Amino acid sequence: MISMENLYVIKIGGNIIDDEEKSKSFLQSFASIKSYKILIHGGGKLATKLADTLGIQQQLIDGRRITDSETLKIVTMVYAGYINKNIVAQLQSYNCNAIGLSGSDANIIKAHKRIHPTIDYGFVGDIDSVNAERLMHFINSGLTPIIAPITSDSNGQLLNTNADTIAQEIAKAMSNYYDVQLIYSFEKSGVLLDANDDTTVISSINYNYYSTLKSEKKIFAGMIPKIDNAFAALNNGVKKVIIGKAEELTNLINNSSGTKITNE
Amino acid sequence: MISMENLYVIKIGGNIIDDEEKSKSFLQSFASIKSYKILIHGGGKLATKLADTLGIQQQLIDGRRITDSETLKIVTMVYAGYINKNIVAQLQSYNCNAIGLSGSDANIIKAHKRIHPTIDYGFVGDIDSVNAERLMHFINSGLTPIIAPITSDSNGQLLNTNADTIAQEIAKAMSNYYDVQLIYSFEKSGVLLDANDDTTVISSINYNYYSTLKSEKKIFAGMIPKIDNAFAALNNGVKKVIIGKAEELTNLINNSSGTKITNE
Repeated sequence: MISMENLYVIKIGGNIIDDEEKSKSFLQSFASIKSYKILIHGGGKLATKLADTLGIQQQLIDGRRITDSETLKIVTMVYAGYINKNIVAQLQSYNCNAIGLSGSDANIIKAHKRIHPTIDYGFVGDIDSVNAERLMHFINSGLTPIIAPITSDSNGQLLNTNADTIAQEIAKAMSNYYDVQLIYSFEKSGVLLDANDDTTVISSINYNYYSTLKSEKKIFAGMIPKIDNAFAALNNGVKKVIIGKAEELTNLINNSSGTKITNE
Repeated sequence: MISMENLYVIKIGGNIIDDEEKSKSFLQSFASIKSYKILIHGGGKLATKLADTLGIQQQLIDGRRITDSETLKIVTMVYAGYINKNIVAQLQSYNCNAIGLSGSDANIIKAHKRIHPTIDYGFVGDIDSVNAERLMHFINSGLTPIIAPITSDSNGQLLNTNADTIAQEIAKAMSNYYDVQLIYSFEKSGVLLDANDDTTVISSINYNYYSTLKSEKKIFAGMIPKIDNAFAALNNGVKKVIIGKAEELTNLINNSSGTKITNE
């Protein structure tokens, strides 16, 4: 059996991006990772703030943002423009040869507009496939992909796409070529037994324990899709999934911090 | 002597981007070019409109826009986000494997903040170098670079950068590896003897004729830097420079339309 190189697929949450100091510290740690790596970033509050300033009302259905054409314009500008290019320029200054990509660029992600029996989500994308070969080609030529959560369909329609899902799909697709570790980094220290106490990090969760935690309602709403994504990734070739604090990225990689999601 | 492949470096003006129909027609023609190609796009009126809506006043000195930090945010969002990703997604739908890039991405353009003895232009970039090898690598792997006029300096500071100048610098740098034709395409049919009459296209201009036209004030303000750029390109390895109408892109390439700038 041929041993494969390590690849870290790292999602950085919006709350970190909103904070200049935390974001800088995270990007410095990210740049210093010697293994191959891919960064997927969310959007944070910048898009919402810009929409507010422009007087564009945000529609939410079941906690999910509906992307009308004006909102799509804003998220495209903020995610693929402002946030993505600032991250890339900063990483370049830390000697990390970053390349910012939406799903449309080099056709790395094919998506379609979400089809749902009752809710029209607007211009929201669901992923059909990830072009792992193209990403591998970039990585092998010394580049570090920085992915914005914007994709497009075969008609050239841009689509707002969940960054956690993009991270999961990329991690799965790349696991054919690398030993992939998927890291969801955000403002909390990991999955917490008490959502209000950052010292109650659960160091390891397998599927049985997850089921128990869910039935006891110890895992809160926003965390459930993250962990579901984590198990889906583990069931499709990804070696390890870690959830933890963005400022502790180096420790997340060293297994000395955060929550490990495991199939064991 | 080894014969080199053709490469078209094409600048598309902002007025075309603002017009959905013209833009679509241009992009379809662009996608159908069989030779290697690079597209550089300007910004159009979208950035100005957004600034107006947000109540950000635009400062102009000698007809040049001063880029303060709020304006930089807007041009980064509009140029590198909204315009760039819409072009890329459209080209993908026409089977052109486009990749959108700012100067920071993959470190393709190194720039610095403009230094001027009397005017502080704000966050405006002047180009130090173009990474022709990286662009060649993209092109040879089947990708078509689509370049937004945003660069960054070595400190990770994003900079608003003139798209005509980017086109010229890329054309020059790529001429070490390809037979480069530089095309400035915009809303007019070429360089006009009478600026108000689109039928008075000058089919060919050499340097002597250009000097005469300038001394007779037949060439207007905005055209002078374009033609200066064209001659600078010709003096640095670029084979041919054409200025003409975006909707006639195929004819510009076939030499049956537009103004040819020549060293002969």
